[in-house]
Amino acid sequence: MADQSKRWILMTTAQTPTNIAVIKYWGKRDESLILPINDSISVTLDPDHLCTTTTVAVSPSFDRDRMWLNKKEISLSSDRYQRCLREIRSRANEVEDEKKGIKITKKDWENLHVHIDSYNNFPTAAGLASSAAGLACFVFALARLMNVKEDLGKLSAIARQGSGSACRSLYGGFVKWNMGKNDDGSDSIAVQLADEKHWDDLVIVIAVVSSQQKETSSTAGMRECVETSKLIQYRAKEVVPKQVADMEAAIKYHDFPSFARLACSDSNQFHALCLDTSPPIFYMNDTSHRIIGCIEKWNRAEGSPQVAYTFDAGPNAVLIARNRKVAALLLQRLLFHFPPHPDTDLDSYVTGDKSILQDAGLKDITDVEALPPPPGIKDNIPALKYMGDVSYFICTRPGRGPVILGDESLALLSPETGLPK
Amino acid sequence: MADQSKRWILMTTAQTPTNIAVIKYWGKRDESLILPINDSISVTLDPDHLCTTTTVAVSPSFDRDRMWLNKKEISLSSDRYQRCLREIRSRANEVEDEKKGIKITKKDWENLHVHIDSYNNFPTAAGLASSAAGLACFVFALARLMNVKEDLGKLSAIARQGSGSACRSLYGGFVKWNMGKNDDGSDSIAVQLADEKHWDDLVIVIAVVSSQQKETSSTAGMRECVETSKLIQYRAKEVVPKQVADMEAAIKYHDFPSFARLACSDSNQFHALCLDTSPPIFYMNDTSHRIIGCIEKWNRAEGSPQVAYTFDAGPNAVLIARNRKVAALLLQRLLFHFPPHPDTDLDSYVTGDKSILQDAGLKDITDVEALPPPPGIKDNIPALKYMGDVSYFICTRPGRGPVILGDESLALLSPETGLPK
Repeated sequence: MADQSKRWILMTTAQTPTNIAVIKYWGKRDESLILPINDSISVTLDPDHLCTTTTVAVSPSFDRDRMWLNKKEISLSSDRYQRCLREIRSRANEVEDEKKGIKITKKDWENLHVHIDSYNNFPTAAGLASSAAGLACFVFALARLMNVKEDLGKLSAIARQGSGSACRSLYGGFVKWNMGKNDDGSDSIAVQLADEKHWDDLVIVIAVVSSQQKETSSTAGMRECVETSKLIQYRAKEVVPKQVADMEAAIKYHDFPSFARLACSDSNQFHALCLDTSPPIFYMNDTSHRIIGCIEKWNRAEGSPQVAYTFDAGPNAVLIARNRKVAALLLQRLLFHFPPHPDTDLDSYVTGDKSILQDAGLKDITDVEALPPPPGIKDNIPALKYMGDVSYFICTRPGRGPVILGDESLALLSPETGLPK
Repeated sequence: MADQSKRWILMTTAQTPTNIAVIKYWGKRDESLILPINDSISVTLDPDHLCTTTTVAVSPSFDRDRMWLNKKEISLSSDRYQRCLREIRSRANEVEDEKKGIKITKKDWENLHVHIDSYNNFPTAAGLASSAAGLACFVFALARLMNVKEDLGKLSAIARQGSGSACRSLYGGFVKWNMGKNDDGSDSIAVQLADEKHWDDLVIVIAVVSSQQKETSSTAGMRECVETSKLIQYRAKEVVPKQVADMEAAIKYHDFPSFARLACSDSNQFHALCLDTSPPIFYMNDTSHRIIGCIEKWNRAEGSPQVAYTFDAGPNAVLIARNRKVAALLLQRLLFHFPPHPDTDLDSYVTGDKSILQDAGLKDITDVEALPPPPGIKDNIPALKYMGDVSYFICTRPGRGPVILGDESLALLSPETGLPK
């Protein structure tokens, strides 16, 4: 055992991206192991704009496992955290830091406690897959701290037990979660289809939609859907396998029209299943519907899809533009229909990769106010504007997988106290 | 041939109800004969509150077939009218009116022209199945004028060719449209399951929901759904047959809980298919969703369904209360959440059977404003109100089938000119 009198603290800080499914995970065949009823495919989002940063620390001075999320201490007692912690701890190996004079044996880990501090660089409550990034980062950071030797696939199977879609956040680029067949879930893991450089034309614009509605959690929603929908098993068994194969091919060959058609129809079918649940679940609202209407009309007018849309368990739209030029036009259209309140700073209304805003020729609110109606809107029909229906936009792109932040100054926990800075 | 010099006019006036499907018709297997991909079941609505009245007239002085709808002349050239007119004409029989000295032979009908004047006692554009009542009345009135001997089932097969759901408006009470198997559609007819007196506890409240959205017509919507939805055939073949059998039993045994569960889940599944269409079709809006939320919450709190909901191809809610007492409570809840604008007359905001309003103890707007929040809304959560989101309510009940109005003063056409009065 390392010398406890020294009161040393060993820390690791990791950064993990969120991901957005383009073929949806919806429905479990095993609630406790989180095993899905179908494969799913996602795009990892650039962690510069959406990610979780987690510092994990271990010290003989810690008397219990503790966790903080966005500066507030939270309970680690939930199954999802306990299961991941247990799985990682059981795979811990010897760690030695000669400089600091620390040596932790495989056996020591059973008695050592950890502090975990996690932070999302985006609003947690906004429905932007914070639990996927969060659990992936939790598992990834702990695995590195504890010198776990398992590959990313094995780690993804552990993250999956914390939050299903978290398994897809262990890779950058384009990721597939194989549903697997084994009862123990050992083959229900994520694999990378292609990295983020494979298709770097794509630009992603997220519309964070204002909502008063209390939403059904995705955990409860998918359980009720599996229990009551008469269509969900048919989708899982008969529809998704082909969608997944087609989506893999679309990604492989940069086939944007197929990619867009598949992503849109799969998102819509997922929301159809929510509606086929008893009682029905409505994640999309009128604003979501209007954004879809706007994209569908544009895609139709162009003769070929320019933008794909997909919605998770909430009203936010994730819009994937085929390239930067289209993304600039998309932003113009979105800002025309969904302008901010006049007192809003454009800089806080369009966040993330600001260069798209520049491409769109929009420097401030007066430029937004001066936007002409998008082409295709007939002169005799006033183009509708919905001020306030979108809270803000995030411009981003496909991004990298988890990384370890070597720079200790980026750690969220103090190296002296092991408590949040 | 009757003496043309006399310039006689022979008229018939009929009144036909609308109907609301509780197991939905959605999808055709034959576009031109209007043959559906599944059976459907409907409740006929009381024509006192929602009906079409149609006067048909024949005279040797008419030089062409003409039609008026709600006081405006419209074209009869569309397929739906032409097909019904042709089918009825080909079955016309000898008509003799000794008093007026009129005699029309079977052969005469080929050369005689008709005037048709139709009127809905409810707003045509509000999405309240006006075409079902309209086409049923068109066929029923012409059949009587032309002394067509076919029974209601055969007439329903003709009305079906004008507007699918029109076939169900030829009976009162509870009606089933058998999809049939024959290629010529001869067995795709409506049958009465039970008349309107069979289950006269039921009270129906329709919320006409305000909408800015341009809606997809049900004809276009169902065609696109059949062409693009990956779930619709599964629903038609695997889900509906059992829903129909269960609904027939629920109606037969006055089993309201089953009736409500089936009606709600079938309505939601129909809207799920709309969402599974490419591009997706949204008939319900946030107001529709809020009404569903309100009913689901209430039904859950009571432990057993009190109210069923169903939505056709639009945002309007058709709510079926198990009895008058529940209907009064329903109206209180609806008016609490969806009050009229303060300058609205309650009498024009709640139309139809006003006695429900009396049962609810609501005499004027001040009574509505004084309504306490419905039970079950927690003190710490302000109960949400959505003023202006509902245009008005209609209180009604299951009603009778088509009737001939013998009183000539009720005719819409002048007996002297054959033109609208």
